[in-house]
Amino acid sequence: MTAPARYEKVTIAGVGLMGASLGMALKAEGLAREVVGWGRNQARLDKAVELGAIDRGTRDRAEALEGCRLLVFATPGRVTLELAGEWFPEVPPGCRITDLVSVKGRMVERLTEITPPRRSYVSSHPLCGSERTGAGAARPDLYRGRLCLITPVAKTKKTALAEIQKLWQALGMSVVSMAPARHDRVVASVSHLPHLVAAALVNQIGDERLLPFAGTGLRDTTRIAGADPKLWAEIVGENRREILSQLEGMMENLMLAKQHVKSGDPARIGRWLRKAALRRKKLDP
Amino acid sequence: MTAPARYEKVTIAGVGLMGASLGMALKAEGLAREVVGWGRNQARLDKAVELGAIDRGTRDRAEALEGCRLLVFATPGRVTLELAGEWFPEVPPGCRITDLVSVKGRMVERLTEITPPRRSYVSSHPLCGSERTGAGAARPDLYRGRLCLITPVAKTKKTALAEIQKLWQALGMSVVSMAPARHDRVVASVSHLPHLVAAALVNQIGDERLLPFAGTGLRDTTRIAGADPKLWAEIVGENRREILSQLEGMMENLMLAKQHVKSGDPARIGRWLRKAALRRKKLDP
Repeated sequence: MTAPARYEKVTIAGVGLMGASLGMALKAEGLAREVVGWGRNQARLDKAVELGAIDRGTRDRAEALEGCRLLVFATPGRVTLELAGEWFPEVPPGCRITDLVSVKGRMVERLTEITPPRRSYVSSHPLCGSERTGAGAARPDLYRGRLCLITPVAKTKKTALAEIQKLWQALGMSVVSMAPARHDRVVASVSHLPHLVAAALVNQIGDERLLPFAGTGLRDTTRIAGADPKLWAEIVGENRREILSQLEGMMENLMLAKQHVKSGDPARIGRWLRKAALRRKKLDP
Repeated sequence: MTAPARYEKVTIAGVGLMGASLGMALKAEGLAREVVGWGRNQARLDKAVELGAIDRGTRDRAEALEGCRLLVFATPGRVTLELAGEWFPEVPPGCRITDLVSVKGRMVERLTEITPPRRSYVSSHPLCGSERTGAGAARPDLYRGRLCLITPVAKTKKTALAEIQKLWQALGMSVVSMAPARHDRVVASVSHLPHLVAAALVNQIGDERLLPFAGTGLRDTTRIAGADPKLWAEIVGENRREILSQLEGMMENLMLAKQHVKSGDPARIGRWLRKAALRRKKLDP
């Protein structure tokens, strides 16, 4: 296996948790001579510089793109779609482009379509968010040991695909490649549904006076419900069809649980719980 | 406030996670001159001695009860009911009795009824389980910093209540006192429902090939589904009525989520997620 590319200049659009952590990781691994952060808010850019996440920040697109060899959109889906329309025509030849957006279908199709010749776009989804947000929560090992899904389409260039894969691996990630439509089904199941279930569970604890009685069980189960509602409203909206199907399935499972409980037969509810416990154990390495 | 009692001999029936951790904690805090473990399995008793959780183990009831000043049932509900019927008539005068069972209604009523004169029974529920089980997972700080619910009834002696409260406080717990019926409603909401929801969520991930794609979100949300199915089948059976009402509520909340998602209005799902996020934040100190 050849070494990963070392980029003269990497531009990260968006210096929140994901973008700032990526900047830190690229610098820690020596994969970029210069990391430039682009954003709309100067104070946030200054903070990212201060934290050592980026070498410099700019609000200027031309400055961000000049000489850029790797462009990463660390922005939410809607913003990424919007920015791509403006930025893609100005991306320098030979530049690699990726994004970290968590719903792929429509976006990958659109961004592939508008990628100019001699530039290459490969979509990525590193599975390593947090319920915390902003550069202040960033850390250089956010990506390490985690999984990154990359979602090539027919038009994706093999060399670019291999290069982006190697980039994530160099940051300590395992990389799995799958079609965008399959990606969206997978994340609806393992990420979006758990998020909505956690939120529903918190909302079900209707009386806030009960909160002091919560143990680790409720805390763990609902932790992700503390994540940024605006970001998640967008994710949920983008992956609506898959999520609705998952919600249906979840309600059927709860209905089954209800029937087991109602039966008053401990062996019956026990078998159902046992199935879950065995499967859950497979989640831990 | 006076100092907590120091017991000449504490007997813990059941040397699993809770019982063994309690033994370690009592010894660490110097609250017992001798801690005796009772159990049916000699190998487990030997292990608890080896781990320093108890000073000696016995399978003999008379030996366990002789000179006992504090008797703790660290056994599941059904076993506790069964043991109490046999043990209570032989408990030495002046001995305090408590249990750690997680559903109170019927059990507290029955054990209060059969408590002989000059003995006193105060029911406890320390909220500090784990998905791990057995003495091997025990640790002396399992109880520290956590909440303990105690559930006195009209017949509970005030001095015994104060003593048991002080005992848990001495182990670093906050203690809240409430009626058994209210206790069962509270735990259905903050503990039993999350457990069933976690199990339903694991079961909803029907395809095990999806498990490698799980991030921290799914892991956290489903962690408690890994707990002992037999123990939980019993808990669920005991608190059936309250749990069914919680399951109904949860399904209504998921139905609401489904309507919000279906509407395609990000502001609508965003408001619902925001409500959950704000409430979730109150769960963290």
